[in-house]
Amino acid sequence: RALSLDAKKELAEELRDCIIETVARTGGHLAPNLGVIELTIALLSAGDFPRDSVIFDVGHQSYAWKILTGRRDLFPTLRQEGGLSGFPKTSESEFDVFNTGHSSTSISAALGLARAKRAKGDHSWTIALIGDGALGAGMAFEALSDAGQSHENLLVILNDNQMCIDQAVGGMARHLEQLRTSTRYIHMKTVWEKRLEKLPLLGRPLLQMLARQKRRWRSWKKEAGAIFEQLGFRYYGPVDGHEIGDLERHLKALRLIRGPVLLHAITVKGKGYCYAEDEPEIFHGVSPFDTSNGQSNGKKEKEKTFSQIFGETLTEMAQTDPDITAITAAMAQGTGLIPFQEAHPDRFFDVGIAEQHAVTMAAGLALGGLRPYVAIYSTFLQRAADQLIHDVCLQNLPVVLGVDRAGLVGADGDTHQGAYDLSMFLSVPNLTIMAPATAADLRAMLLYSRKHEGPLMIRYPNDRASNRELYAYPDKADELAITDFYQLRQLSEGRDMTIVALGPVVWQVMEALEILKEEIPEFSADLYSCVTASPFDYETMLDSIHRTRRLFIVEEAVELGGFGAVTASETIRVDAGLLIDYAGVRQPDRGQASREELRASEGLDQEGLAG
Amino acid sequence: RALSLDAKKELAEELRDCIIETVARTGGHLAPNLGVIELTIALLSAGDFPRDSVIFDVGHQSYAWKILTGRRDLFPTLRQEGGLSGFPKTSESEFDVFNTGHSSTSISAALGLARAKRAKGDHSWTIALIGDGALGAGMAFEALSDAGQSHENLLVILNDNQMCIDQAVGGMARHLEQLRTSTRYIHMKTVWEKRLEKLPLLGRPLLQMLARQKRRWRSWKKEAGAIFEQLGFRYYGPVDGHEIGDLERHLKALRLIRGPVLLHAITVKGKGYCYAEDEPEIFHGVSPFDTSNGQSNGKKEKEKTFSQIFGETLTEMAQTDPDITAITAAMAQGTGLIPFQEAHPDRFFDVGIAEQHAVTMAAGLALGGLRPYVAIYSTFLQRAADQLIHDVCLQNLPVVLGVDRAGLVGADGDTHQGAYDLSMFLSVPNLTIMAPATAADLRAMLLYSRKHEGPLMIRYPNDRASNRELYAYPDKADELAITDFYQLRQLSEGRDMTIVALGPVVWQVMEALEILKEEIPEFSADLYSCVTASPFDYETMLDSIHRTRRLFIVEEAVELGGFGAVTASETIRVDAGLLIDYAGVRQPDRGQASREELRASEGLDQEGLAG
Repeated sequence: RALSLDAKKELAEELRDCIIETVARTGGHLAPNLGVIELTIALLSAGDFPRDSVIFDVGHQSYAWKILTGRRDLFPTLRQEGGLSGFPKTSESEFDVFNTGHSSTSISAALGLARAKRAKGDHSWTIALIGDGALGAGMAFEALSDAGQSHENLLVILNDNQMCIDQAVGGMARHLEQLRTSTRYIHMKTVWEKRLEKLPLLGRPLLQMLARQKRRWRSWKKEAGAIFEQLGFRYYGPVDGHEIGDLERHLKALRLIRGPVLLHAITVKGKGYCYAEDEPEIFHGVSPFDTSNGQSNGKKEKEKTFSQIFGETLTEMAQTDPDITAITAAMAQGTGLIPFQEAHPDRFFDVGIAEQHAVTMAAGLALGGLRPYVAIYSTFLQRAADQLIHDVCLQNLPVVLGVDRAGLVGADGDTHQGAYDLSMFLSVPNLTIMAPATAADLRAMLLYSRKHEGPLMIRYPNDRASNRELYAYPDKADELAITDFYQLRQLSEGRDMTIVALGPVVWQVMEALEILKEEIPEFSADLYSCVTASPFDYETMLDSIHRTRRLFIVEEAVELGGFGAVTASETIRVDAGLLIDYAGVRQPDRGQASREELRASEGLDQEGLAG
Repeated sequence: RALSLDAKKELAEELRDCIIETVARTGGHLAPNLGVIELTIALLSAGDFPRDSVIFDVGHQSYAWKILTGRRDLFPTLRQEGGLSGFPKTSESEFDVFNTGHSSTSISAALGLARAKRAKGDHSWTIALIGDGALGAGMAFEALSDAGQSHENLLVILNDNQMCIDQAVGGMARHLEQLRTSTRYIHMKTVWEKRLEKLPLLGRPLLQMLARQKRRWRSWKKEAGAIFEQLGFRYYGPVDGHEIGDLERHLKALRLIRGPVLLHAITVKGKGYCYAEDEPEIFHGVSPFDTSNGQSNGKKEKEKTFSQIFGETLTEMAQTDPDITAITAAMAQGTGLIPFQEAHPDRFFDVGIAEQHAVTMAAGLALGGLRPYVAIYSTFLQRAADQLIHDVCLQNLPVVLGVDRAGLVGADGDTHQGAYDLSMFLSVPNLTIMAPATAADLRAMLLYSRKHEGPLMIRYPNDRASNRELYAYPDKADELAITDFYQLRQLSEGRDMTIVALGPVVWQVMEALEILKEEIPEFSADLYSCVTASPFDYETMLDSIHRTRRLFIVEEAVELGGFGAVTASETIRVDAGLLIDYAGVRQPDRGQASREELRASEGLDQEGLAG
């Protein structure tokens, strides 16, 4: 805060290097963080933290903040097990006030906090820092509407890294902008409005004159501001989000304003790292890479990810089937839909961060006779839980959900675990739920899905799909039927136990059985691969249990109330006296770690399962 | 359609009488339906239904539509078991194209349908009819944003029954409005824009001139329109929503426009029935009443509803505790919060139809040291599932959710069943879930909740709370502790079975036991009233099971994956060889009926349970 402007600029460069070096090693969100370095420095200079509070929307742009608020030494542990989180964590520092991860929550939380501060007589500053993408979500609009009609002292900083900077609309506008953000002017204006309100007879006409004047100003400003002004915010900007001096001046001025204010800052995503500036989409969230050329260090593995198979198969199907449409909520890259977008742009809908609309819009598409496929991360499907139940399932509409990142997600940590989709949706009427164990499974499910009647959810993890085959599908796609997925697939035979493994966790179970066989040579089990969680093939399982009298169910989803629990509870109603157990994710709020580490902690690796 | 204007006006009066008479007898949504009678007649005159499609948002304003589309004879069966639904149902008529019930889905669904129609070469009309309240929800904003940048032929009719009609802003504005909606003008404008686009050299400057002209017009119009125009809609209005002739003229004109259009119609909620016009809030959804004076026919019952107890207790608590705040998403009346609103207006937040924002804003309030209570219907909590998990529970914030209408809801039917809150949220970390069985339980829970650490959900049905007591609470509220709610309460002792009943369904279980005892005198059971579903008192239950070896769990929530299923599955892991069964709602998508009828269908009444 005490540094000179030049020293701050130097600091920005140091931060930039530090973040690039670290993320190159650990992986993480690169472009969003490089874009807000100057903004972070300016915030820390203008505010009085941790007394003041800033809530980072999504939170994937908080790296510079972490480094500057006492976590520089820990920064190399970013996103590692036990290390710094890639998102704000109140448990890490008093400078982090609200945990984020999912998008568009910051204005709601900041408004609540501002209201609480007012009630407590606390005059400190409350700020929400939100990107233009996150601002498009309905939840942010709900919060803006509520905040706009409140009188809370709340600053929303719009970190706008996509919209172009408009040409300044003439000298008058620039002048007015300077006027409006100069400390003296704002102070004067607030004081005057207050005073005038107290003089009803004299004041009313003057206020009306001011209002007319304000309206006239408004029409000179760029259109983006109009929406915020209509909602009740005072809109300032746009300003250059990389000019520390300007930002500081603006922020110090805005701090004096009463009521809700929005500062529109234009930033460049990936600022200062040429590879990231050129391709911010690719450098949004990255795996470890080589800093000299921006190439990923990952060895090219032969097996494709489930997301890739989803995208490629759907693209191929759409070539012969004009009804197939794909929908994503701002996750075209992550869900593997880029090939679809390129091949069929007219049937590809990226609705932005708007999961609710995505799912109900898909219901509308299905209603009109198309075949919509919604690709969505498990953790973000929570945003559309009601739409899935109310608009898709109760009406039994043929919408297919490709539920990506279902299961343990790794380094993104607790906010992103894909743990709840089964416990949430197993009880929903009409919904068929599948979980492919192999690449061939997912491909066959998609080929079949075209003729599935009613809603279908296909869940798969953030992982590569095995190229091994566990089932011989018919040669022709036309011949695929629900029975090809419904029936349990027996992988081994035995006397001592019946094991049912849902989806790809079956590979860990197979390895566990190998270990067990070495330890206890006489042990043998009926092992079934299950790829359809609902409806479930009780017949086959009950036949096996009649012999083994012992059941063990494994899944990669929350254990309490999940697939194993539901299957177990239904089983005991018809066959009492069994030994039943099930294994899933016991602690869905576990922090970050690799998928392998998490599986080990959860006892879902081969060792744990063998135990 | 062929009727003269006068005949249509007469028709409107007939419809009005018919709806008032029927709703007075059956109960239902009165004010919303009286407000859209003229709009419905005008729509049917201007469109070509069922080829064209109209999606009613929420759907509680579709009575006139139902009567005029061949369901007049069935209308007296409104909201009765097996009768006409109070909401659109595709199963009832081809004129109903999309089932609604929850708010703010219509624009998403209509946009999807319009996209599908375009893909299929179908040029029919697609309309979403949405109220101003529903338009405030984030989901509607997401849909407007997507629709606005699309080129679909979509008409959104804003049925605005709250905002005042602005004074017309001068003769010029009125003139322009007439101009813009006259068929000839619109046709000309569309044709010209198309033609001009094809002449790049000559056309560009002309188009820019038109755009400038358009901007100038915009500034003359009332502010509400600006937001829609910014989002890419053409905005027309406001028009009087009770002038059939005007409406027809507008609708016929708008039908010729390409691209997304919004027609702003001003209506009076409860139009034509003086009692409903004066107090539209009270006549929004009603129980049977006397048409001559608007008084409810319901006998004053002694027992209060759970909602009343919730509201009254909270209001009382807030008198001595300045930290208590109440939040509702447009359901102040339904959730019993009117007394709170009146007594503590500064600590009462009605955020409108914005469940997502409501829950996360509450997280912010808790963060700032206040004690927020969110009153929300179970079925609408589905809208905030992610916010409850991500913003409240993962951060372990002390937000209390009063989950109203949990369980079977009766005449609102499948879209409103409060069936899923347990299966959805039992597996969420840190969340305590309670279900009061009596009025005293709910009151004690609220008094205790003030000091509860972490999130607490209290679920109760749309019903009166028993004044009988099942537990002796300490005299002083200060002495209440979580253990007062955690422990199972034993209501009867026996040898043959252990029964656990969650919440108020225990009263049906007690009656069922009486019946059983008459039929089988030697039968006896340990009956426990459970008022805390999570964490659950396994110790007490296991003690009892050790003797009885037989467990039966009863709840009023979806049976698959619900409280009974989760408890049963956890129990068999520790004690195999038990006879276990559980009863809940087997068919959560069951249609409307009274709560008693539904309970009987689900086997949750005393007769079914005794069986």
